[in-house]
Amino acid sequence: MIAREDYMKKALDQARQGAAAGEVPVGALLVGPQGDVLAAAHNRVEVDDDPTAHAELLVLRHAAAQLGAARLAGCDLYVTLEPCAMCAQAIAFARIRRLYFGAYDPKGGGVDHGARIFQQPTCHHRPEVVGGVQEQACGEVLKDFFQARRTAQARDMQQ
Amino acid sequence: MIAREDYMKKALDQARQGAAAGEVPVGALLVGPQGDVLAAAHNRVEVDDDPTAHAELLVLRHAAAQLGAARLAGCDLYVTLEPCAMCAQAIAFARIRRLYFGAYDPKGGGVDHGARIFQQPTCHHRPEVVGGVQEQACGEVLKDFFQARRTAQARDMQQ
Repeated sequence: MIAREDYMKKALDQARQGAAAGEVPVGALLVGPQGDVLAAAHNRVEVDDDPTAHAELLVLRHAAAQLGAARLAGCDLYVTLEPCAMCAQAIAFARIRRLYFGAYDPKGGGVDHGARIFQQPTCHHRPEVVGGVQEQACGEVLKDFFQARRTAQARDMQQ
Repeated sequence: MIAREDYMKKALDQARQGAAAGEVPVGALLVGPQGDVLAAAHNRVEVDDDPTAHAELLVLRHAAAQLGAARLAGCDLYVTLEPCAMCAQAIAFARIRRLYFGAYDPKGGGVDHGARIFQQPTCHHRPEVVGGVQEQACGEVLKDFFQARRTAQARDMQQ
């Protein structure tokens, strides 16, 4: 039995690969009812020219296609950052059993912030939610990425 | 210059094609800054085994891939039903200029109901929104679809 921390480490590996590709480093993992990893992804918005290509949507779509079912009952989703409203609503549509996320996102989150999707009467499936799994490590990947980007931008402006 | 009613008629054609394919009949059209139709789609959740395959997400993804850009500034989106929270947040991410929708959706909508995505502080782009465009025709396509489905289910239960 793999612990949730180990699954989150795999999601973190994805996030780091995303940073290397120039994407906002968020990683996600879709785990089946037996604990098998069905899909792993990082954000691909810029690489794919796709405004919807968040890590969560990619693993949901990949796993659903693989299983031949639009609903993923019994599956759990691990993601390094609190999902936005788009991803949270997709998680509800996909009937995900449990959502584990790492860092909280007060500026763009849609689970514990903003739209609070799972608390809306228009939301017809509510996963169990566990936030703050490896929160510090998940947050640091993002912090390092944005700090490096700001440094690079400042350097560009001086040239 | 094509009127918004004509664009919505094209979105309605898509919705009817969706119904014929057994999908919840919602149709969408993505229109470029010059008025050219960049993408048209209906829901494909069941056909594609994809919980995210709402008409709006499909036209956003298609147009973004076609233009080679994750943001579609200056583009307008026509959809026969009030977008859900997932699609509304994707519309914000894609920087859509204007959103025209047909029927209102108190049970599942995310624009004028539930999450009210564009009114959240976590939403960083707000399109102009015009609801109720050909509201009656858009609503009837959905009503007819669900009525036919209920009739078929009742017949199946009697057999």
